[in-house]
Amino acid sequence: MIPFNKPYLTGKETSYIEDAVKSGKISGNGKYTKLCQAFFEDRYRIKKALLTTSCTDALEMAAILIDLKEGDEVIMPSYTFVSTANAFVLRGAKIIFADSLPNHPNMDASKLEALITPKTKAIVPVHYAGVACDMDEIMQLATKYNLYVIEDAAQAIDNYYVSKTGEKKALGSIGHLAAFSFHETKNIISGEGGLLAINDEKFSNRAEIIWEKGTNRSAFFRGEVDKYGWVDVGSSFLPSEIIAAFLWAQLENLDTIQARRKEIWNTYYNTLQSWASQNNIDLPWLPDYATNNAHMFYLVCKDLNQRTALIEQLKTHNIMAVFHYISLHTSPFYNGKHDGRALANTDHFSDCLVRLPLFYELNEKEVLDKIILD
Amino acid sequence: MIPFNKPYLTGKETSYIEDAVKSGKISGNGKYTKLCQAFFEDRYRIKKALLTTSCTDALEMAAILIDLKEGDEVIMPSYTFVSTANAFVLRGAKIIFADSLPNHPNMDASKLEALITPKTKAIVPVHYAGVACDMDEIMQLATKYNLYVIEDAAQAIDNYYVSKTGEKKALGSIGHLAAFSFHETKNIISGEGGLLAINDEKFSNRAEIIWEKGTNRSAFFRGEVDKYGWVDVGSSFLPSEIIAAFLWAQLENLDTIQARRKEIWNTYYNTLQSWASQNNIDLPWLPDYATNNAHMFYLVCKDLNQRTALIEQLKTHNIMAVFHYISLHTSPFYNGKHDGRALANTDHFSDCLVRLPLFYELNEKEVLDKIILD
Repeated sequence: MIPFNKPYLTGKETSYIEDAVKSGKISGNGKYTKLCQAFFEDRYRIKKALLTTSCTDALEMAAILIDLKEGDEVIMPSYTFVSTANAFVLRGAKIIFADSLPNHPNMDASKLEALITPKTKAIVPVHYAGVACDMDEIMQLATKYNLYVIEDAAQAIDNYYVSKTGEKKALGSIGHLAAFSFHETKNIISGEGGLLAINDEKFSNRAEIIWEKGTNRSAFFRGEVDKYGWVDVGSSFLPSEIIAAFLWAQLENLDTIQARRKEIWNTYYNTLQSWASQNNIDLPWLPDYATNNAHMFYLVCKDLNQRTALIEQLKTHNIMAVFHYISLHTSPFYNGKHDGRALANTDHFSDCLVRLPLFYELNEKEVLDKIILD
Repeated sequence: MIPFNKPYLTGKETSYIEDAVKSGKISGNGKYTKLCQAFFEDRYRIKKALLTTSCTDALEMAAILIDLKEGDEVIMPSYTFVSTANAFVLRGAKIIFADSLPNHPNMDASKLEALITPKTKAIVPVHYAGVACDMDEIMQLATKYNLYVIEDAAQAIDNYYVSKTGEKKALGSIGHLAAFSFHETKNIISGEGGLLAINDEKFSNRAEIIWEKGTNRSAFFRGEVDKYGWVDVGSSFLPSEIIAAFLWAQLENLDTIQARRKEIWNTYYNTLQSWASQNNIDLPWLPDYATNNAHMFYLVCKDLNQRTALIEQLKTHNIMAVFHYISLHTSPFYNGKHDGRALANTDHFSDCLVRLPLFYELNEKEVLDKIILD
């Protein structure tokens, strides 16, 4: 049986956890948390990084930070995970769903302007499969209409956007705020886990307070205030040092993990070219402004029947391939609240996209044999 | 140096974590999560238990479950951790702070009725130091006024309330909902971590949905629905299996840990009797309806000066004793929102209470020597 995903231990996870316990500190914001945060700040030029218990929680922090009020509108793709929307719904926002590009699940940035109203407060580009949205276009709209941009970079670790001027920027370092995920299906994992990236420094102090349960505890430990107390809303967004220690062992091996994932991705891509074209199946497309972090390898079938048959075919060979999001605008929770616009590209990916297994210890040739030779 | 707290490894934590990784599942709601939840349900007669990333998050789930609306009022003690309040403030509630008992930080249940208005939606008793609030009185008020009771059982694992009829009920099994903590300072730990206890079964299905990011994923895996999607608000409240595996190793050793903590607590209590009375210092008091889980050993000094001197004295001997909550009604965030009532008992504990080190590997005689013989 080849599972869709399999977590990978780099080797040092449990010894770092034991080290955290021995140091007397396994609650949040300790040594390993600081190591992980500094890694993101240094490598991706993020102004301030804060580990969270999930990407969902990082998005919730962002929604609190931009002071969302009941009735504010937030624009995001419909083809995304529920947490992208829930984080803002919990603050009372109305979600305005944007359609995908014709040839990629990412939102079509050229069609966003028509969705902006005086109530719009933020745009949330989701970098699907880790692939960059058109950030120049989105940031220009944000400037023009005075909106916040919160990147949902759940899948986008170690990936880049290349602007027209040739400048290469890490995903998660471009919007005012961004959220990463370390869920077990991601490139770098801690089971559940996430990180809030703060690129607009006006949010830094308050973010730290909200992260520490609405207290100025961090400022207290830096000696900036002489006692700490309740100064704002907040939650317990920070993960245990057990999680941070695990994550640090993963981040230390990021380059090795990325090299192996890209190798699998490229083997899939090169081997499947003629099979895909014979079967009217699309391979992943990358815009010229996007690099590839090999988070996901997906196929887009010509229709739902073909996808169902392909998933079944692989299942009979004990290979788990899985479809992905059900469009949020058609969900039981939101279809009555959606404004009724058809989102044809979104529905297409909901029906036709299928993801192949992709993990460090995968034998991709076994998967390919069953796809091509069957 | 004797720290205030030191996390304790029972021995199997990291091997259980490795087992989780090898099983291919380190995201939430796996084998170890189910073991931990069943432990609470079986041992404490809780209808349904759900692990969370923190006690704060369990309280936030409770606030979502009771459908709190802007302007609803929630009654709780002022002498508590900020999360007790923040969880409800995040849903728009107004906090009505109750005063403590004269001789214990728990809220004075006999004075709660005067605080109830038509806007009151819930009472949140906090079992301070793990010691039961007067639950018969609180549950009767809730029935009379149709209110929810949400126990903040952060410190109250393995402790009981004995009602007038002699019935012994586990704390966390009495209110409609309850929240436990496994923060590193608690009896049973996972660094950061918590659990929502559901005792009113009408909340069970929705709790599971809110816990799983607003999706009916759990029902899907039980085969109750044929696909899962977005059906409600929610968040990522469930912790990684890494955390659950760690916690399971702790829960397996609960009786050993509790026996050792009670030994330390009793040694403190018996040894300090005459010293305390000579110095006008109060030892912990237990109401006759409460059992003791040895979560905390505290002293109540006669005034702030005496407490400051005692903390200093211990510090010169490299022993870390610490004070506790700053009353929430006086906090920078809430003092302008509080209705102005004086809460004299609360302020007394804020000024005078000091906690002594209490952890599994403590040499309590070293601490006692420095208190009594100095």
